[in-house]
Amino acid sequence: MDIKTALETYRSIQKKLNAYGFATTAVYYDSVTAAPEGGEKERNDAMEILSNITYEIETSPEMLEAVQYLVLHKDELDAETKREIELYNKQSEYMKCIPQEEYVAYGVLVNEATSAWRRAKNNNDFAAFAPYLQKIFDTNKKFSLYYKPDKDPYDTLLDGYEKGLTKEKCDEFFSELRETIVPLVKKIVKTKQIDNSFMFRNYPIHIQHEFSDYIMEKMAIDKKYCAIGETEHPFTLNFNKHDVRITTHYYENDFASSMYSVVHEGGHALYELGSGDKYEGTGLSGGASMAMHETISRYYENIIGRSKTFISLIFPKVKELFHEQFSGVTEEDFYRAANYSEPSLIRTEADELTYTLHIMIRYEIECGMISGEYKAEDLPRVWAEKYRHYLGVEVPDDARGVLQDSHWSGGSVGYFPSYALGSAYGAQIFETMKKELDIDAAIRDTGDLSKINEWLEEHIFRHGAMYDSCDLLRMCTGEEFNAKYYTEYLKNKYSAIYGLE
Amino acid sequence: MDIKTALETYRSIQKKLNAYGFATTAVYYDSVTAAPEGGEKERNDAMEILSNITYEIETSPEMLEAVQYLVLHKDELDAETKREIELYNKQSEYMKCIPQEEYVAYGVLVNEATSAWRRAKNNNDFAAFAPYLQKIFDTNKKFSLYYKPDKDPYDTLLDGYEKGLTKEKCDEFFSELRETIVPLVKKIVKTKQIDNSFMFRNYPIHIQHEFSDYIMEKMAIDKKYCAIGETEHPFTLNFNKHDVRITTHYYENDFASSMYSVVHEGGHALYELGSGDKYEGTGLSGGASMAMHETISRYYENIIGRSKTFISLIFPKVKELFHEQFSGVTEEDFYRAANYSEPSLIRTEADELTYTLHIMIRYEIECGMISGEYKAEDLPRVWAEKYRHYLGVEVPDDARGVLQDSHWSGGSVGYFPSYALGSAYGAQIFETMKKELDIDAAIRDTGDLSKINEWLEEHIFRHGAMYDSCDLLRMCTGEEFNAKYYTEYLKNKYSAIYGLE
Repeated sequence: MDIKTALETYRSIQKKLNAYGFATTAVYYDSVTAAPEGGEKERNDAMEILSNITYEIETSPEMLEAVQYLVLHKDELDAETKREIELYNKQSEYMKCIPQEEYVAYGVLVNEATSAWRRAKNNNDFAAFAPYLQKIFDTNKKFSLYYKPDKDPYDTLLDGYEKGLTKEKCDEFFSELRETIVPLVKKIVKTKQIDNSFMFRNYPIHIQHEFSDYIMEKMAIDKKYCAIGETEHPFTLNFNKHDVRITTHYYENDFASSMYSVVHEGGHALYELGSGDKYEGTGLSGGASMAMHETISRYYENIIGRSKTFISLIFPKVKELFHEQFSGVTEEDFYRAANYSEPSLIRTEADELTYTLHIMIRYEIECGMISGEYKAEDLPRVWAEKYRHYLGVEVPDDARGVLQDSHWSGGSVGYFPSYALGSAYGAQIFETMKKELDIDAAIRDTGDLSKINEWLEEHIFRHGAMYDSCDLLRMCTGEEFNAKYYTEYLKNKYSAIYGLE
Repeated sequence: MDIKTALETYRSIQKKLNAYGFATTAVYYDSVTAAPEGGEKERNDAMEILSNITYEIETSPEMLEAVQYLVLHKDELDAETKREIELYNKQSEYMKCIPQEEYVAYGVLVNEATSAWRRAKNNNDFAAFAPYLQKIFDTNKKFSLYYKPDKDPYDTLLDGYEKGLTKEKCDEFFSELRETIVPLVKKIVKTKQIDNSFMFRNYPIHIQHEFSDYIMEKMAIDKKYCAIGETEHPFTLNFNKHDVRITTHYYENDFASSMYSVVHEGGHALYELGSGDKYEGTGLSGGASMAMHETISRYYENIIGRSKTFISLIFPKVKELFHEQFSGVTEEDFYRAANYSEPSLIRTEADELTYTLHIMIRYEIECGMISGEYKAEDLPRVWAEKYRHYLGVEVPDDARGVLQDSHWSGGSVGYFPSYALGSAYGAQIFETMKKELDIDAAIRDTGDLSKINEWLEEHIFRHGAMYDSCDLLRMCTGEEFNAKYYTEYLKNKYSAIYGLE
């Protein structure tokens, strides 16, 4: 073998894998946007066959040999290819540590757990799900120890989602949040609450459709490459940088829900659309990490989307489309209602301020599950205690408690902290951006978010997955990660809105 | 090899092929319902890779050997498996006759021709498309002669879409139509035209959405297994019998267009949904032929959907949803407007009566192209002459003339006659059904089309592709195909509506 042959093999197999990836992405997108419910079995059968074929290609001796050869000669590769091969290799190294029968069994477990979770949530029956949950945590721990026998398994799990992240760093980060946000939330609870009742009037869905198009336009999202759909839970999916989908969920009696879903998912989409052309079709396309992706989506949703300038930009259109529903509502009323904060039960519906507390609770539970401090059966009690303690709310049932999220049933352990980190990265990036760009003027002058997009494209998007997100954050802001930016941002913003001293 | 091994091989490869089929179906459906336009190149790349893999599996020595073995031992197979293997083998026999490089070149030609056709239609520039069209006809002729050197190539092409169909049979059928429908149309042109102006008032699309759901309900289509989408051109797509999609196109100023698209595509869907469970996942799932499929869709659209009983069934809902638009419109007005007939330029927008004349013209042109009587360059002239002669309309440009349909650019030669045959099969089936079922009472009693569906499921749907459609028609009606049923049906219906003697 030589480098040329090894690279050709790698690229040609990658092209094939991209084709399978395209197809399974389409099947997934279709399943949640268009497919009738009755076709689930046949779809699962087809997906299982395609996943097996994909797995066989990914781990084929031909591919592994080529990657192995390239790893051994990595210093002869250009920086991008070297990075790409290292990422691929890391993934295969992990896979190689797990006995195949255990890997297959885990796939089956996750599938069964997902169905069990859905049933348990519908029936509010945590006991039926607990054995699956315990097994999923146990298996994640076991696999982590196969891969890195000398490392704390939760560190290995965290690192799998966010390179370099450790329990120690998380502890420090979350204790910072705990010390600042928890008291802030408690103060707000005691003040006079904002009137956001007009957000819950009747908003006909076909007009909300039109409004989504308008929001995408104002975000300067190129609809040639990005389409919007409707799903139970909003998400973003990228086929490739020329084909990105965002989805939203319309509620007739909730104006802000879909609007901020579109802004949030629109942020994810802008990231994908702005990934460097040279990475297209390679392992470096897309974003740096899930945390960096969440950085961007929450940046658009909260820091920009709930700012006075953005509210001011869209207010005339809102008044035009929803004349009656917004009658008597001022721009300032809308701004304040968009920043309404109140401790609540459901993470995905939480406001900007309390959101990270929901994540903190999940982080603490994950730590305890991996360390063995908790067993699955303890979680309803632990969950309720933590919600009472940090958020001051009573959990009425497990469906609105420990069963609310799909992540654990899907096998994602160590993933939640990325959400909170993303929010914090965003605040740090905001400070840097403000020094280089008059954000308010940029939005007012262009009438859309194009200048913001350009800045982020230059500093973040175009780099794709070329850098670990901690490095990218340092390149962008000139500093190591510092959670103070986030807590300061929240303190200043919410103190002003709620008139705290 | 033994039968058991051969069958196992065949079934296991078929399962894999079904998975690929599922995936490419999803990619296609997504591409016309949801995908942003900018992703075309990457999608085509992915589809090309997947098509090549599919082709390799279909023609793998393993598969062909198994099929060959089963063909040799077909008398030891049960009737269903025998039929299935024969169908698969017929297809591979055809493929085997074509040199691989010519087969590949034809694939490329069709792809290019499709793009060239789209551009030519947009620019009304037939000359730019003519060379592709000529090559497509020439290649179809050549391939047919490779396969059956001693047979008229157009007969071979017809037989490829409708088993047993020949030019002789088509000539007889179309001359029957020519003699009866052409004079009938000429008479109608001279009578007082029906007022259908209310069909073109403003019909808000979000209410048309609701109406589509209502129509599906009245057709007793099980939405658990059938979903509706929106596309430029309406169609039906079956992933499998538990997952069928129909699409429609909404026009704000045209009420009947989407309504009858839903009824037509709903007919296709009912056929797929009613296919026998035992055929699921085999080569016998779906319908008997394209003509039989069109029989069913046009049966629902025209014979049922434009009947007094059906109009009467849905009229109250129409009045409720479109109160203003239908103000002053009686049930009888609606019935007459739904059966408005007038010679026109565009096949897909033609009414029930004149529709088959559009097909007849295409049939005559296909014959002439294959026989060598016409060259592609003659077609604009020939097209205009035939439209003037049979329909009495002047073709203003090629975009609304010879360039209107996608079929030829997509390589479908010999396919058009199936549309007309389908209409005629439907009328024959209608006569049989009437003897066994009081159709009007069945609709009135149940308030939907479930009894019609049941009858068709028993006589047609459940048989999947087990029988050639001419055999199925005979089994269902007790007679050979007879076009008289169709011409009589049209004469009676339209004479009554237009008050002819």
